[in-house]
Amino acid sequence: MIRILLLGAGRSASSLLRYLLHHAPTENWQLTVADLQPAHLEPVLAAYGSYARAVLFDLQDEASLHQLVREADITVSMLPALLHGPVARACVQYGRHLVTASYVSEEIRALHDAAQTAGSTLLMECGLDPGLDHMSAMRLLTNIRSRGGQLTAFKSYCGGLLAPAAEADNPWQYKFTWNPRNVVLAGQSTAKYLENGRLRFIPYQQLFARTERVVMPGVGEFEGYANRDSLSYRAPYHLLNIPTMLRGTLRRPGYCAAWHALVRLGLTDDSVHLGNAAGLPWAELVEAYLPASSGSQPLAARAAAYLGLDPNGPEMERLTWLGLFTERPVELPNATPAQLLERLLTEKWSLQPTDHDMIVMQHLIEFTLDGTPHQATSSLVVLGTDAVHTAMAQTVGLPVGMAVRRLAQGKLPQRGVLIPTLPDLYEPILAELATDYGIRFVEEEQVGQVHEPAG
Amino acid sequence: MIRILLLGAGRSASSLLRYLLHHAPTENWQLTVADLQPAHLEPVLAAYGSYARAVLFDLQDEASLHQLVREADITVSMLPALLHGPVARACVQYGRHLVTASYVSEEIRALHDAAQTAGSTLLMECGLDPGLDHMSAMRLLTNIRSRGGQLTAFKSYCGGLLAPAAEADNPWQYKFTWNPRNVVLAGQSTAKYLENGRLRFIPYQQLFARTERVVMPGVGEFEGYANRDSLSYRAPYHLLNIPTMLRGTLRRPGYCAAWHALVRLGLTDDSVHLGNAAGLPWAELVEAYLPASSGSQPLAARAAAYLGLDPNGPEMERLTWLGLFTERPVELPNATPAQLLERLLTEKWSLQPTDHDMIVMQHLIEFTLDGTPHQATSSLVVLGTDAVHTAMAQTVGLPVGMAVRRLAQGKLPQRGVLIPTLPDLYEPILAELATDYGIRFVEEEQVGQVHEPAG
Repeated sequence: MIRILLLGAGRSASSLLRYLLHHAPTENWQLTVADLQPAHLEPVLAAYGSYARAVLFDLQDEASLHQLVREADITVSMLPALLHGPVARACVQYGRHLVTASYVSEEIRALHDAAQTAGSTLLMECGLDPGLDHMSAMRLLTNIRSRGGQLTAFKSYCGGLLAPAAEADNPWQYKFTWNPRNVVLAGQSTAKYLENGRLRFIPYQQLFARTERVVMPGVGEFEGYANRDSLSYRAPYHLLNIPTMLRGTLRRPGYCAAWHALVRLGLTDDSVHLGNAAGLPWAELVEAYLPASSGSQPLAARAAAYLGLDPNGPEMERLTWLGLFTERPVELPNATPAQLLERLLTEKWSLQPTDHDMIVMQHLIEFTLDGTPHQATSSLVVLGTDAVHTAMAQTVGLPVGMAVRRLAQGKLPQRGVLIPTLPDLYEPILAELATDYGIRFVEEEQVGQVHEPAG
Repeated sequence: MIRILLLGAGRSASSLLRYLLHHAPTENWQLTVADLQPAHLEPVLAAYGSYARAVLFDLQDEASLHQLVREADITVSMLPALLHGPVARACVQYGRHLVTASYVSEEIRALHDAAQTAGSTLLMECGLDPGLDHMSAMRLLTNIRSRGGQLTAFKSYCGGLLAPAAEADNPWQYKFTWNPRNVVLAGQSTAKYLENGRLRFIPYQQLFARTERVVMPGVGEFEGYANRDSLSYRAPYHLLNIPTMLRGTLRRPGYCAAWHALVRLGLTDDSVHLGNAAGLPWAELVEAYLPASSGSQPLAARAAAYLGLDPNGPEMERLTWLGLFTERPVELPNATPAQLLERLLTEKWSLQPTDHDMIVMQHLIEFTLDGTPHQATSSLVVLGTDAVHTAMAQTVGLPVGMAVRRLAQGKLPQRGVLIPTLPDLYEPILAELATDYGIRFVEEEQVGQVHEPAG
């Protein structure tokens, strides 16, 4: 009997919970699901009898956290990343294991030695991005290295997007499938990457103007903007000397140019409260951001002129569709521009019950083999099953569940802070995703120099 | 015998200390100067015998802070503003008074009721800006109101600049006379002001491109950029219904356009550590911020083209003068762009022993009197005496000292959190500054509509 504790069973944990419940009887797991609202879990868990139970869990109650962690062999945390510190420390204190889909923070990294001493495995970054990106990249890189290939460029993109059918009613071709606030504040610092051996930086106010085109067979074109830090995975990927390294986020073509206009207007700023009334019309807010002497034309035309955009072009179409030039009230008093924009977008970009989401990931790797340049790609497209088991919930939750299973089976002897760059972990997980769930990376390779669009 | 405690006696407190020592014998003050390095104060204080003593004070030692505050009638804090919370709380606890030159923070504001109950006066914003700006503005506004004038516009600018003789060796016509970090990070959020009854916002990336021209007779032209929040003084100035209200910072013409280029390059960003080596040449850093495909011309020419600037124009002259396009190393490893820029500017913009600084302040007030538009200005120019008694040290320190004197004389009966908008405070202080120190606001008035340059 292995005792597994799941902390947090909100919507994003739907596919993980289903995976854990499905395997509990055959793997002989005793699953405890700890949530702030355990009542809604009872009907789901009832079918699994003694294998699963739900308990009330309040983050503020540290004593109860300690008791739950101590009584479990493996804790799986789907809590917000900022809350993982106390959970990880409790795991180390009682010599228990932890699995999450969140980035290794400095706070977690500092626990490495203590976790090794205590016999704890703190397995982080086991979801989609971070998670599946590491697994699929490491499999491809290891394959190329084993054949004697010399790696010259690594680019990797991921996007949580919409299934093509759900894109049609929205010129941005985007709706929220994840934390809206993170989308509004995306990239608000200088992005760092490597290109042909040189460090390259993009300041926030240029980030959405410098995109790369990414094509995925079957699902069309995308554009990628650079993530904040593309350099931190050089060490874990064993790419310390690679001349080109870039990680980015995918959107449909046109999204970034229109978002760039929002950035330039100042509407993504989160550092100042405007002292506005909730009834302030959006048109007045936009007007307040234009220079005073901007003429007597209609607001949208003056905004287009200020931004240097075609008043009938695709950027202005997207801004107009959001209602920025209407009398619609901003609805929140004394808010930051970013909070007002999030409020507006949460309505405009809300996933409808019939909408399906789509996860797209692609690695582009250049290498030299026998003196000849080669390019390899590894591509993943996942469509959501329904509004509960979205592509996001599946691609985040299933790898976490599979990692828990390997750990529970005693097949992961390493202790301390880990991420899934170990073949013993990523090989079986990628195989299980492909075989049992059809979540499959398509790997392709071609010989010859590849023409890249200018950055 | 009134016991006065001065917390922090660094360079910026030079004129304040001299004022307090000068008045100690005649006012019968016992002055305690508490500093981290009290030894350097001994020779200065020795001449004042039993009226003054220096003691060691470490900010970390809360017990000693409490003892010092309890044993004084009035505490004057020249510590950094962030440290005023514990000092103010101790003053309230022991029913003592506090005077500072710092903004009223939320933490201080929250002490108002407790201070009133305890009989404590927490007199904040008694320096230059904030401080003299309030005093001179209130005097002028009160005068206009007393004559029946209807206020329609209030604009106020202040700058800590260089005496004209010290400007000649530097195309920016600027050197640091105050905290360099604050200058580098100035304006890093949306600025808010009111213009003709409408809220107006300027996002950071546009702040230094939208300046106003300000002319001061005798010392020439300046340009002003908007401060972060011009609206918060509507209530204390009794200007709740004024259509136009703007507070700004002064620089010499051309500074802002060149600084705008630094902002656009990304070099003022403080949110990301670049992972750079200390030996990274400035030219490589600038190169890393340019788009990849920016041609084969020299770096400065490509930077000018990217920024849309004349390669031989005044902005590029200033950037070149800083050494941005040279092999000079950035000197700090793994720093933020803002930290690297501060390091460079601290050398380039260092005040030389023979340099004198200059404080410039101007209020521009528009009002209607007897149906006719009027404009009033109140202008201040102060030149530094020497490298110790700079214009900055005088204009910050002397008003603080004079406020302490009024408080010690029992002439300020109000308790709780105050700023110097009370006539009983600003009238005698403005008079003493003019009579004893020649620090004098020149007030002028003219009838008729005033032409304003476009914002």
